[in-house]
Amino acid sequence: MNFELSPEIQATLTKMRRFVEDEVYPLEAAFLYEGFHSILPDLEKKRAEVKELGLWAPGHPKDLGGMGLGLVDLGLVSEVLGASPLGHFVFGSQAPDAGNIEVLHQYGTAEQKARWLHRLIAGEIRSCFSMTEPGMPGSNPVMMETTAVLEGEDYVINGRKWYTTAADGAAVAIVMAVTHPDEAPHRRASMILVPTDTPGFRLVRNLQVMGESGEGFFSHGEIAYEDCRVPRGNLLGPEGQGFVIAQQRLGPGRIHHCMRWLGICRRAFDLMCRRVVERAASPTHTLSDKEILQAWIAESKAEIDAARMLTLHTAWTIERHGWKEAREAISEIKFLVANTMLRVLDRALQVHGGLGMIDDTPIAWFYRHERAARIYDGPDEVHKLSLARRILKSYR
Amino acid sequence: MNFELSPEIQATLTKMRRFVEDEVYPLEAAFLYEGFHSILPDLEKKRAEVKELGLWAPGHPKDLGGMGLGLVDLGLVSEVLGASPLGHFVFGSQAPDAGNIEVLHQYGTAEQKARWLHRLIAGEIRSCFSMTEPGMPGSNPVMMETTAVLEGEDYVINGRKWYTTAADGAAVAIVMAVTHPDEAPHRRASMILVPTDTPGFRLVRNLQVMGESGEGFFSHGEIAYEDCRVPRGNLLGPEGQGFVIAQQRLGPGRIHHCMRWLGICRRAFDLMCRRVVERAASPTHTLSDKEILQAWIAESKAEIDAARMLTLHTAWTIERHGWKEAREAISEIKFLVANTMLRVLDRALQVHGGLGMIDDTPIAWFYRHERAARIYDGPDEVHKLSLARRILKSYR
Amino acid sequence: MNFELSPEIQATLTKMRRFVEDEVYPLEAAFLYEGFHSILPDLEKKRAEVKELGLWAPGHPKDLGGMGLGLVDLGLVSEVLGASPLGHFVFGSQAPDAGNIEVLHQYGTAEQKARWLHRLIAGEIRSCFSMTEPGMPGSNPVMMETTAVLEGEDYVINGRKWYTTAADGAAVAIVMAVTHPDEAPHRRASMILVPTDTPGFRLVRNLQVMGESGEGFFSHGEIAYEDCRVPRGNLLGPEGQGFVIAQQRLGPGRIHHCMRWLGICRRAFDLMCRRVVERAASPTHTLSDKEILQAWIAESKAEIDAARMLTLHTAWTIERHGWKEAREAISEIKFLVANTMLRVLDRALQVHGGLGMIDDTPIAWFYRHERAARIYDGPDEVHKLSLARRILKSYR
Amino acid sequence: MNFELSPEIQATLTKMRRFVEDEVYPLEAAFLYEGFHSILPDLEKKRAEVKELGLWAPGHPKDLGGMGLGLVDLGLVSEVLGASPLGHFVFGSQAPDAGNIEVLHQYGTAEQKARWLHRLIAGEIRSCFSMTEPGMPGSNPVMMETTAVLEGEDYVINGRKWYTTAADGAAVAIVMAVTHPDEAPHRRASMILVPTDTPGFRLVRNLQVMGESGEGFFSHGEIAYEDCRVPRGNLLGPEGQGFVIAQQRLGPGRIHHCMRWLGICRRAFDLMCRRVVERAASPTHTLSDKEILQAWIAESKAEIDAARMLTLHTAWTIERHGWKEAREAISEIKFLVANTMLRVLDRALQVHGGLGMIDDTPIAWFYRHERAARIYDGPDEVHKLSLARRILKSYR
Repeated sequence: MNFELSPEIQATLTKMRRFVEDEVYPLEAAFLYEGFHSILPDLEKKRAEVKELGLWAPGHPKDLGGMGLGLVDLGLVSEVLGASPLGHFVFGSQAPDAGNIEVLHQYGTAEQKARWLHRLIAGEIRSCFSMTEPGMPGSNPVMMETTAVLEGEDYVINGRKWYTTAADGAAVAIVMAVTHPDEAPHRRASMILVPTDTPGFRLVRNLQVMGESGEGFFSHGEIAYEDCRVPRGNLLGPEGQGFVIAQQRLGPGRIHHCMRWLGICRRAFDLMCRRVVERAASPTHTLSDKEILQAWIAESKAEIDAARMLTLHTAWTIERHGWKEAREAISEIKFLVANTMLRVLDRALQVHGGLGMIDDTPIAWFYRHERAARIYDGPDEVHKLSLARRILKSYR
Repeated sequence: MNFELSPEIQATLTKMRRFVEDEVYPLEAAFLYEGFHSILPDLEKKRAEVKELGLWAPGHPKDLGGMGLGLVDLGLVSEVLGASPLGHFVFGSQAPDAGNIEVLHQYGTAEQKARWLHRLIAGEIRSCFSMTEPGMPGSNPVMMETTAVLEGEDYVINGRKWYTTAADGAAVAIVMAVTHPDEAPHRRASMILVPTDTPGFRLVRNLQVMGESGEGFFSHGEIAYEDCRVPRGNLLGPEGQGFVIAQQRLGPGRIHHCMRWLGICRRAFDLMCRRVVERAASPTHTLSDKEILQAWIAESKAEIDAARMLTLHTAWTIERHGWKEAREAISEIKFLVANTMLRVLDRALQVHGGLGMIDDTPIAWFYRHERAARIYDGPDEVHKLSLARRILKSYR
Repeated sequence: MNFELSPEIQATLTKMRRFVEDEVYPLEAAFLYEGFHSILPDLEKKRAEVKELGLWAPGHPKDLGGMGLGLVDLGLVSEVLGASPLGHFVFGSQAPDAGNIEVLHQYGTAEQKARWLHRLIAGEIRSCFSMTEPGMPGSNPVMMETTAVLEGEDYVINGRKWYTTAADGAAVAIVMAVTHPDEAPHRRASMILVPTDTPGFRLVRNLQVMGESGEGFFSHGEIAYEDCRVPRGNLLGPEGQGFVIAQQRLGPGRIHHCMRWLGICRRAFDLMCRRVVERAASPTHTLSDKEILQAWIAESKAEIDAARMLTLHTAWTIERHGWKEAREAISEIKFLVANTMLRVLDRALQVHGGLGMIDDTPIAWFYRHERAARIYDGPDEVHKLSLARRILKSYR
Repeated sequence: MNFELSPEIQATLTKMRRFVEDEVYPLEAAFLYEGFHSILPDLEKKRAEVKELGLWAPGHPKDLGGMGLGLVDLGLVSEVLGASPLGHFVFGSQAPDAGNIEVLHQYGTAEQKARWLHRLIAGEIRSCFSMTEPGMPGSNPVMMETTAVLEGEDYVINGRKWYTTAADGAAVAIVMAVTHPDEAPHRRASMILVPTDTPGFRLVRNLQVMGESGEGFFSHGEIAYEDCRVPRGNLLGPEGQGFVIAQQRLGPGRIHHCMRWLGICRRAFDLMCRRVVERAASPTHTLSDKEILQAWIAESKAEIDAARMLTLHTAWTIERHGWKEAREAISEIKFLVANTMLRVLDRALQVHGGLGMIDDTPIAWFYRHERAARIYDGPDEVHKLSLARRILKSYR
């Protein structure tokens, strides 16, 4: 066992951390008070600087303009970037583009790649991933009503999706739709590329999540597919393999999110520690003298560190032994890290008192929006049950 | 011991519950999506109907147009009204007006009453209570920077307040300001009535709480008092007695809030139960078959019922034996009920999945805004420590 | 609503509390270090004193030598007695005798009563209740292997039971056995009185519970019924009605246990408070200055008080409206109070440090033995699921 | 980063695990029902076999007859051995001997080593460590009343100690006593070797811990030092350096305990999984179908894995960078792992129902005795506060 990081990744992380703190944090206030569009020009400027620094697109292949990092290193990067809601976007590492790019890279036809891949990696356009349906349990992805029926050389797509993150302003959607209704449940759906200017693709609304409908990249769309017709050549990957492909991207995607959540933990922890040493609790004491808060700080530190080591171990297992070996761990970190984050955020908010409730720090934003971490990609409860069933198999 | 409710209060509660469900719930969607002002005309119409039904201002004296309920009955009413964010407002029972009215009724001069009391009870105007300061710990109310200096026959007020709930649109503020800086800490401040159109009263902003700056009654103002000059006759209650008066209103106010939170619990619990029986988890099952969710329902029920009995017992103790006898219990329910509510809300949200994150139910609104329940009127931690210290006195 | 206690019960509780503290607590050390038998003579002396004081058998009818208290008052008594492991025994109120007496009183024939009832109430003999089986889930009482086959005028009983509390030294067992194997599951078993000197009744062992096999009243027997033959007249209650009778005794039994657990809470709470004010944490401070411990004290107080009010409300509902009305509440208090007790015990133990681990206080005894509270009479989980299913019925 | 274990340690762990399961587990029942002395002959036989296998004394130097493992490998061994209460003893790796041996090895004079070291490593004799005092907070080791006064060439020791683990039958005690009362608190005490047959060394009692006074190695003594006189040459290490030496042994000792606790977690987890697949919950289902239990299994797995990775990382940090670098982590794992273990044990016990309460599995033994894990070596709360204060230093 050797927990030492390579000097290369250490240097990268240091540079990134400095950039996030010095260049990205200052944009947060405007983001929280004015919205994504108001700071988009600034974000683009920062993205250009990141490219200059050679820190762009850390997870994508070098020959496509990325840094080509392995999964452990990419996880460490995700932690650094996750400290700000804007971090991943500024470094060209944001979901859902990152995952979409991976799928396109692996399964896209030459034509598909030519049209979308390079511009996505370069950050010139954005994409979205359209899978969850309002009437169906997200935890059971094979229950799906959206269909794509082949008519001549076209797929005609009908259905309703929601939580299509970042659909607002995206150039293209990857839509999951049932193409083979008579197959076994896991083989019914395919992925199809749908340019968002296709007739029949209608952004019904940006969901009003926790009071905010958001905009642009920071939005979750409800989409109606109404006789939405795209050429057969827009099929992404083999027919009926939508779920299989989706599952493959799940491991790296999980690392991305969990390390991002750990980045949020670090930010919240840091804000909490600063707060207690600065805030007067009485004319002669600061909050840092309060032992209950000290206990929270200690517990948060231990819980974060433990969750972090487990996540890094999971990343390493995927990278070294493949995602099948890491299956249990991929479930474990989902609920363990999400709950760790929400506990830490809750404590950080409480320590800030009235200030914690308002948007003068990023805590309230994390608190309300990252509550979704226990829901998307399958709620905690689903992961727990499936993990337990897998474990118990070996006892029968 | 006798837990039976009188037939009168039972009948009142039934009428109120029906009205809330039939007339108030339908306004929530517009409130959540369009805001308070958009539904104000509808709310005023409902208030008129409530008056017609004789259900207006349940806590205020009969001779002033209220129902004159005792504290236990008023608590039960608060629970019913609390099921909707709009409930208390529609029935003329909303904080901070309710508490302000009580103080005015008890301490106001004839002139003050003539000018404010009747119109407040009638709901013709609104008021606010301006106590918390951004730079000071709310948990230590005697740390206060706002001053009111007597110049001739006027008080000249200077300072900054925030979390002045419902300041936006209020006609009058009750301001807590230091008038006697040389007295013992608890005798330094006085309450002063400040009409909000007084020069020097400036609403700096509605605080952006959890992404929403709110409006009108649903807002929390940051107020600058800049050489704000009001006549000496605006002093409310005896000089230097501001904290003493504030503490007296704390008991009934606590019952109001705790029973309101229990109303939120009931609403969330009800939505959770409906959700699980309606939502498909698979082609053949609903969520109601999921045992983890069943456990949440059972735990929520037990925790709500226990917290409710403790709160009612506390209300009864105040009503029967006075607030000094109920001191410990008043601290206990603060953190016990607040945490019960937040746990129940968290479970209800989780059960709703993606739907729980958006404003198509009131859960997400409660989730983000009622997080403050563990903070305002003193954070949990402060109540726990002061309760423990009081308990331990008897062991020395 | 009126939470006032009658002057009579207040006086009774005061007398009992004083007796428990002055006369029973001093016996605990010998009980914990020397065992039940070593203090039995002392216990009998105390029982005689209790009878003298007119405080004997609080739950049993006056004409049979008891105090004839109603369920709420009896609950309050159980709380007072529960503060010591020895309390109920000293006052003639101990399970399982109390429940057995009730069943005998309600269902016993004249002959059965003549033989057992009076001597049981008088505390001259002890009884046990033999229901749970080692191979069967206690939570599913209708799964039962013990049979009682009618041969001529005798029942011949075969099977194995365990957790037959206080079998060691009992004069008689009430055995639950399948007499009607072809009926619906809930109608298969009957209750049968088995004198413990009947051939074929064999106390295999006192279970070694948490390291202690116990003795006499404080033991849990494993019993083999081996062609154990008793006269048909030993049938207790109607044939095949064993479960129905068992369920009826469940409500009052639950109040007994829950209030007893709350008595344990009070004891542990009291010891915890004493400890923190007495124990030095440093040359200048006691543990009472430690804020984390203060928070535990406050949380314990609030949780105990809430659980207590819910239990009293449940007792009142049973007493006033019957156990069917109280069904949900009877499930709620089971897990709510048991878990409250275990949390409070855990905190009290922790506050005592090394002293908490040893038997110089009763905390360690409660800690290890009362862990069973979450298991017997059905584990928490079973109660939660059945409660939830009952609740959800009204939503379909 | 590389989480791969060396083939050598993997092979060692496999051999050890097999031996523990095949040879040690079968002795547990007799241990739990008959006590340590009853199985001592068997244990000695197993120890001989372990020596034969070359698996003896894994943490001690090769030239002294041990395996000479580094701290990470030793931690992994401790996890394997910890699965049984008897594991460490059988492999010559038990506390407090392991720590005492380390101190002797590092600080002992040639004479001291000659007399004690080899026989201790060989397991021919046992030792104990006498530090904690009944009247003093264990969390504040510098509060100490036991004194060792130099009279001529002898130390005369007076004082009372308790929780002197394994004193019963030990050949020698290392006693911490104040030799320099006028120095700064951390420099007052020295370590002194006291053969237990020295006049004035009196084993007052084996503490009755959770109902069991234990015997031999499995006991915790209360010791009176009454004018106990030993030669000056029994001083172990430099004068007044007792606490400094104690602190140095703390890091490796922490790894020993935490990994042992994780071994207990594994055992409990394994028993829990076996139980649910074997135990009928109804005529057609086993407990493994119960989703609440599935959730516990999943949560336990994730919590164990996370705590384990953090502990291994801590061991690695100590091994690679020294204990000062690992200071925070050494505090973190103390309370994180202890609480993880106790949660897992609680779940495992609950899953076993009545069986979990009795000594037919080792769960109840672990449950009651390992509760001390949150107390010894400083209670959780002390570690949390000191960790937080260290963290907050960097924020000032």
